[in-house]
Amino acid sequence: MCPNPFLNVTETLNAVSATVRLFTSEDPLTLASGAELAPVDVAYETYGCLNSQGSNAIFVCHALTGDAHAAGLRPGDRKPGWWDNLIGPEKAVDTDSWFVVCANILGGCRGTTGPSSINPATGEPYGLDFPLLAMSDFVKVHRRLGQHLGISRWAVLLGGSLGGMQVLQWTLSHPEDSDNAIIIAASSRLTAQNIAFSAVGRQAIMRDSAFRGGRFLSEGTLPAKGLSVARMLAHITYLSEEAFSAKFGRSAQSGKLDPGFGIDFAVESYLEHQGEAFLERFDALSYLYLTRVMDYFDPFAPADALDRLVADPVKFLLVSFDSDWRFDTGHSRRIVQHLEGAGLPTSFREIHSPWGHDSFLLDLPDYHAVIRAFLERAARQES
Amino acid sequence: MCPNPFLNVTETLNAVSATVRLFTSEDPLTLASGAELAPVDVAYETYGCLNSQGSNAIFVCHALTGDAHAAGLRPGDRKPGWWDNLIGPEKAVDTDSWFVVCANILGGCRGTTGPSSINPATGEPYGLDFPLLAMSDFVKVHRRLGQHLGISRWAVLLGGSLGGMQVLQWTLSHPEDSDNAIIIAASSRLTAQNIAFSAVGRQAIMRDSAFRGGRFLSEGTLPAKGLSVARMLAHITYLSEEAFSAKFGRSAQSGKLDPGFGIDFAVESYLEHQGEAFLERFDALSYLYLTRVMDYFDPFAPADALDRLVADPVKFLLVSFDSDWRFDTGHSRRIVQHLEGAGLPTSFREIHSPWGHDSFLLDLPDYHAVIRAFLERAARQES
Repeated sequence: MCPNPFLNVTETLNAVSATVRLFTSEDPLTLASGAELAPVDVAYETYGCLNSQGSNAIFVCHALTGDAHAAGLRPGDRKPGWWDNLIGPEKAVDTDSWFVVCANILGGCRGTTGPSSINPATGEPYGLDFPLLAMSDFVKVHRRLGQHLGISRWAVLLGGSLGGMQVLQWTLSHPEDSDNAIIIAASSRLTAQNIAFSAVGRQAIMRDSAFRGGRFLSEGTLPAKGLSVARMLAHITYLSEEAFSAKFGRSAQSGKLDPGFGIDFAVESYLEHQGEAFLERFDALSYLYLTRVMDYFDPFAPADALDRLVADPVKFLLVSFDSDWRFDTGHSRRIVQHLEGAGLPTSFREIHSPWGHDSFLLDLPDYHAVIRAFLERAARQES
Repeated sequence: MCPNPFLNVTETLNAVSATVRLFTSEDPLTLASGAELAPVDVAYETYGCLNSQGSNAIFVCHALTGDAHAAGLRPGDRKPGWWDNLIGPEKAVDTDSWFVVCANILGGCRGTTGPSSINPATGEPYGLDFPLLAMSDFVKVHRRLGQHLGISRWAVLLGGSLGGMQVLQWTLSHPEDSDNAIIIAASSRLTAQNIAFSAVGRQAIMRDSAFRGGRFLSEGTLPAKGLSVARMLAHITYLSEEAFSAKFGRSAQSGKLDPGFGIDFAVESYLEHQGEAFLERFDALSYLYLTRVMDYFDPFAPADALDRLVADPVKFLLVSFDSDWRFDTGHSRRIVQHLEGAGLPTSFREIHSPWGHDSFLLDLPDYHAVIRAFLERAARQES
């Protein structure tokens, strides 16, 4: 048990899980688009204990389809949290010394307010009436959560993929909130090909006849076919070609190839499974909203983008993986060039891994060692 | 006008175009699967004149979504044939000296019998009752066309992508049919990633509620949403990431980015257009059948695969493009290694091009020069 005052804050339990806590912010949230949103629920989990100085807090930003349940095995679950290999006692993000917070992002569907939430103005799910989001809106919500928890300064902001993009936005908008930032397999600017993959996934969802112009929840349908096709497509970009060959090659799913248009090859079975499993935990509208935020993200575009950060520097660690073709090392290198060009303290490591973009979720010793070493340096600076 | 006897063969004109000729083979065709098919219509075009020795014939095998109309601008058309930059008077495939034949492949939807053709046993379109095809079935049909035209030996077989794969199959099965073979941007064995892309495209089609278990033609529906999503996805793989960036970057479609879930970025407009245009000329069932043939193609798998070819050698030219990631140079190199390993005369050129897989359809001087030089050598050998 942790002697942390904020654990006495009155909160309702979230339906997603007994380990996920729910913070409801009643004050209207003004979004980057100018739209207002209220109330905003924020689902989050914490691991470890906040020390008496409040100097050991790490905020973890999850990727596109992640959620607040980053670590730990909940009773009855078959799988632990999505970053359990990284976060826990004696792990690279050692919860014996760090206090870790992870929250589901705005626009998500895992407890935090999103397009499948009820619109208080209508009593129906928002659907496409949910306002468009920007990366800075995620940051705004997580800053409110920090205030709620009594944490005004994070020792480290940490995230991979979309989570890393959010960390970058946070340090640019509010460098005063953190001392260190770890940005893994992320991008400051999607390429046309990146956008193309997202666009085709969204088209698969929106063209599903069950999508009903985004009103599928009210109408009792689910664009399951489109969402699973979008997920299958995304999974192709999460693994390297080499990883696909190593995992599946051309082997038959059932021992013997039996030609037809069903599941003949093992790789087809894998994609089918990924598509189906996704339906149980993700919402088609969240998929549209969150991928669109990534498409539009371009934080270095304004001429004064780095001014705040230069005035109040954060120490950065950038990590990429050499077989990642979703966000290849060039994406990380561009971020490094912007940061180093502004004179910011920036470490950069390209990790060798055959597993593509998915590498950031895997237990790779070189990768975890880099994170651990950076955090140990950060801890020495905090103490 | 050409003094060719076969031009007097009685043929019906094909509905696709007045320039496309139609040959109907009434004899049952026994497919690799054991199934029989009859009759088989074959849509084809010819360019140039067959010489008196019959020694200047080139057979062109088209790619996945190609057709018999390889060259020439037909009255009323906005665009010439799909390989018009390569084939014509004084072009690399010079129809002043070569006689060129191109036919729509079996299982296609551009005049040759395929799953959207009428099944004579039922009077309805075949749909998924159309038999599964193999690469060797395409070859069988084209050999029948050759017999019909009085051509028993081709100076050159020429094809790109699926067309190149068909050329490879033809030389392995019937090396006696040709003296030379040009195989461009092709593969002898799809990778798991290649199959994954095809599988997701097929799933988009088959999950479209208008697909109706393949009976959409009989039921008066069209899986247009699924087919256009499949085409959009395929187009991502046809261009290199560099080409996407050069053509579109992150520019807005309408001059100013207006966030939403429609066509915001130029790359989205391009994909949307490709998806829509495809609906006018292609059939969803043909897409399933033809992509599946590619998935299963593995002609070097049998231990005796090269025996016939070694006994009756064909001269090969292999061409790849350095930015092609649909079938990268490694695919061509594997074919070369098999052929060279068997002592066959094989030239191999990797062409520098930023345009990815699509390069094989483009007017690239280095590329066309390689084809021209190979054909000039072939012509000297024929004469």
